[in-house]
Amino acid sequence: MTNTSASSADAITPSVNHARTILAAVQALLASSLSAVKASLGGDISGDRLDRYQVVNYELAMLKAEIFAGESILDYAERCAAGELHADFELSLACCSVADGLVKARARFEKIKYATDLDDQDIAAAFSSPLARGFLRQYLDPDVVANVGREAIARGGFGQSKLAEDKEIIASSFARFSDDIVAPLAEKIHRADLTVPEEILAPLRDMGCFGLSIPERFGGTSPNSGEDHLAMVVVTQELSRASLAAAGSLITRPEIMGKAIYHGGTDEQREKWLPKIAAGEPLCGIAVTEPDAGSDVAAMRFKATPCAGGWKLNGSKTWSTFAGKSGILLVLARTSPDLSLGHKGLSLFIVEKPSTQDKEFTFNQTEGGTLTGAAIPTIGYRGMHSFTLFFDDWFVPDECLIGGEEAQGKGFYLTMKAFAGGRLQTAARADGLMRAAFEETIRYALERRVFGQALSEYQLTLAKIAQMAWSLRACHEMTYRVAKLMDDGIGQIEASLVKLFACRAAESTTREAVQIHGGMGYSEETPVSRYYVDARVLSIFEGAEETLALKVVAKELLRTAT
Amino acid sequence: MTNTSASSADAITPSVNHARTILAAVQALLASSLSAVKASLGGDISGDRLDRYQVVNYELAMLKAEIFAGESILDYAERCAAGELHADFELSLACCSVADGLVKARARFEKIKYATDLDDQDIAAAFSSPLARGFLRQYLDPDVVANVGREAIARGGFGQSKLAEDKEIIASSFARFSDDIVAPLAEKIHRADLTVPEEILAPLRDMGCFGLSIPERFGGTSPNSGEDHLAMVVVTQELSRASLAAAGSLITRPEIMGKAIYHGGTDEQREKWLPKIAAGEPLCGIAVTEPDAGSDVAAMRFKATPCAGGWKLNGSKTWSTFAGKSGILLVLARTSPDLSLGHKGLSLFIVEKPSTQDKEFTFNQTEGGTLTGAAIPTIGYRGMHSFTLFFDDWFVPDECLIGGEEAQGKGFYLTMKAFAGGRLQTAARADGLMRAAFEETIRYALERRVFGQALSEYQLTLAKIAQMAWSLRACHEMTYRVAKLMDDGIGQIEASLVKLFACRAAESTTREAVQIHGGMGYSEETPVSRYYVDARVLSIFEGAEETLALKVVAKELLRTAT
Repeated sequence: MTNTSASSADAITPSVNHARTILAAVQALLASSLSAVKASLGGDISGDRLDRYQVVNYELAMLKAEIFAGESILDYAERCAAGELHADFELSLACCSVADGLVKARARFEKIKYATDLDDQDIAAAFSSPLARGFLRQYLDPDVVANVGREAIARGGFGQSKLAEDKEIIASSFARFSDDIVAPLAEKIHRADLTVPEEILAPLRDMGCFGLSIPERFGGTSPNSGEDHLAMVVVTQELSRASLAAAGSLITRPEIMGKAIYHGGTDEQREKWLPKIAAGEPLCGIAVTEPDAGSDVAAMRFKATPCAGGWKLNGSKTWSTFAGKSGILLVLARTSPDLSLGHKGLSLFIVEKPSTQDKEFTFNQTEGGTLTGAAIPTIGYRGMHSFTLFFDDWFVPDECLIGGEEAQGKGFYLTMKAFAGGRLQTAARADGLMRAAFEETIRYALERRVFGQALSEYQLTLAKIAQMAWSLRACHEMTYRVAKLMDDGIGQIEASLVKLFACRAAESTTREAVQIHGGMGYSEETPVSRYYVDARVLSIFEGAEETLALKVVAKELLRTAT
Repeated sequence: MTNTSASSADAITPSVNHARTILAAVQALLASSLSAVKASLGGDISGDRLDRYQVVNYELAMLKAEIFAGESILDYAERCAAGELHADFELSLACCSVADGLVKARARFEKIKYATDLDDQDIAAAFSSPLARGFLRQYLDPDVVANVGREAIARGGFGQSKLAEDKEIIASSFARFSDDIVAPLAEKIHRADLTVPEEILAPLRDMGCFGLSIPERFGGTSPNSGEDHLAMVVVTQELSRASLAAAGSLITRPEIMGKAIYHGGTDEQREKWLPKIAAGEPLCGIAVTEPDAGSDVAAMRFKATPCAGGWKLNGSKTWSTFAGKSGILLVLARTSPDLSLGHKGLSLFIVEKPSTQDKEFTFNQTEGGTLTGAAIPTIGYRGMHSFTLFFDDWFVPDECLIGGEEAQGKGFYLTMKAFAGGRLQTAARADGLMRAAFEETIRYALERRVFGQALSEYQLTLAKIAQMAWSLRACHEMTYRVAKLMDDGIGQIEASLVKLFACRAAESTTREAVQIHGGMGYSEETPVSRYYVDARVLSIFEGAEETLALKVVAKELLRTAT
């Protein structure tokens, strides 16, 4: 580090340190609120009692996600300051982001303070201390915020990601593919509701896209020594930029299915299936959700009944994305007839089926089973199609029960573990979609003139663009951080936090992208209209927002609260 | 009034009075912020200088809209208390609405307080006084809020509108039409992007739907003695419930065109055109927006050049909704070649054209002119189609210049006046859409079971439903109030305020409606998915949110600030 960069780091440190001090006070308010809730519950955080605090717990979970975002973007600014001659933009981006987040956080506390016994003095001490006031005065200043937007436009970006070289290489090769191959097809796939074509799938197979989370020894690209979630994240971001459903989401299913087999399968299952999944032959689908259960996986009724040489599957699944084109499905089924076992009666199967482009299909087995599927028409997220499936005595051989006989009843835990990767991957999808909206908005704002000047020169537009830029940076940094945690075998809660944050950020970013485009943003001929409808799925799938906030995050925060 | 109802009113008065006292303090903070901005500008609120305060002014305009909403719903609760034995639900609905609005308002002030020199003490005095704390403690209580949701579900509604009998009759007759005729067609029109069929148009003609804002003596249903905006509002609400674009929006164009001709036309023009418009023969369209001008009407370049016996029109218009099916267009054109005249060089024309169902058309005149149109594909708001139009030497006779020779150059003012009614009507459209989403959500939440009980029993769902209910009630009351103001010839700013509030409320209501539906909400087979994409147009058209907030509302607030 040279002297100059040290002095730049010195100059940056005060603001970042101030921000950290304020965030620590906010974290303390959160901790105190959690303690109050736990105390009101007499320490009993089992389902029914917890439900009496849903409104409060939702806010607490979102606060946790926002604090995580703030910490992540501050780390980023500090790393930039340590390594660069000039990191003024990164500093402003991070501090404006934290300032904006503080206003929102305060509103959440103002909403729940009576229910969680927070004193006005404590809130004021966190948000209106002289330190906080000085920080907020500086970074809520509309001119400072607008300047972040102006710099973001000038740089065409939201700071540098500073990935390791191998990740930069992966990112740039998928970025090129995204721009050259996917982007030109994306609008047509969306508007005509087509299935992802082989033009996209074939090169992605060659590029190893389906084996990102599978170790090299099983034909994937993850190191044998451990996992590499970051590669999965950067590829997802680059592909989702061009199309959420026809590119970025192709990774979700091999991610989940690969994890389930890798962590839960027998050696034979790993050796048989992981190389195939990594090669994208067959493509895979996930059939977990039931029509009457939604995010309530433990309530499912889909049955697997033992029969000679295997199992017969009976029941319905829904929102099974890519179930037509896929050749194998990961199916969660109740293997114990004892319903009172709840989620302890569930097991996971690898189910083979023919691949089809059709939106409706019926397959008959020689064993007598039938599998019927029908795609659900959706407002966005088009390209893979999400199916409702009906299994009627569909036979699967014994070898398809993941983990074999002794893994019976462990399907739910394995699913949850595999889904954590899916949540991180979904956050990366949200991030890629936001980036597309951000870049398209900059392009339009520079070009479009209204009331005598370019849209990009108006303070309100600049402030919106600044907000997009720092949301993106926060999402980037959070996904990178969670990827690292998950490589270390932890980070399950953080995967939910980044999903909560990124999906909402993608909704508001695409909303503003449409707004800045005005009428053109509402036209199907402009890509932001697609980003808008695509973004709406994010808070619904891969763990609905409410389920993640209440059943995963708040529950865990309360469990560890003192 | 009986003793019992008097005692109920007495019991209600304290909370409502407290809410009013707190709102008055918020209004004072707003006034003080406006004064600070005006002082910083040295009193000069002309365009360029004002633009330096866009971020702040946007918040101030939205605050004004939210205060207006709060006052309106409190008036409602008070009227209910005065007239009814039990108005507990209405009281809670109104007070919870105000409490929720206060949290949001405080966040807006926290965001702008440094830029507008607000003291923390003043903010605390407004929002954390003992009175405010008592009120907020009561009405932010999640159980109280959830109970509002529970009551809304039990009543299947959001309070009673208490309209005069003639309006109730109109509302119920259009409600029946909406349910019986429009609702069964709405999904198909949306998904197949059809044009509103005669099945809907013909009976609406008979019901007088196109003459709601036209006086009886010209064939409409407004009283000769004055205007009747309330009828227009209630009909719009009922029709928009079934379909925004295939029903509720049919009223927007005759509303605007009728107003322009009634207020600006010559006697001959009124007598010739108003009866036709009222009869819905021909249907009308509005061609004001230009591709390069958007909400910046004064910057338009579309030309009308004098020629023998009339004018030749040249240029492009865009987002001209219903321009295919309509037989007359209201066209704003530059009649003076002197561009420096800005909006003072514009005039309004009634332009006849053939009606067509086609999404693309070219019409040739015997005089040699050509009019070409192409529908813009949109993500929602389908049924009328919004066209881009190209006029090439399109001839209009002299008699089609609204107001005749002497009205040349007055087109902009007349357009703005006519558009105020369009804004109120748009707020009513937003309201109808919200109501549809609200009712569908209640239906679904009662039926859908998750984690062992109906969705409608969860606190977080109930809180969301409560929020929908009070947003709807606030919109209803605001539209009624603005209708009355406009009958009295005032209310132009209030029309913008209700549009700002209602369009955002419709966005968030439909967002939550989709969320509560989970995956089903994202399916095109469920109506809430349509409500969601339809709602997104509201903040864009009939005056984009930013334009209304900054150029109409904030400007006027600053003009009158002391």
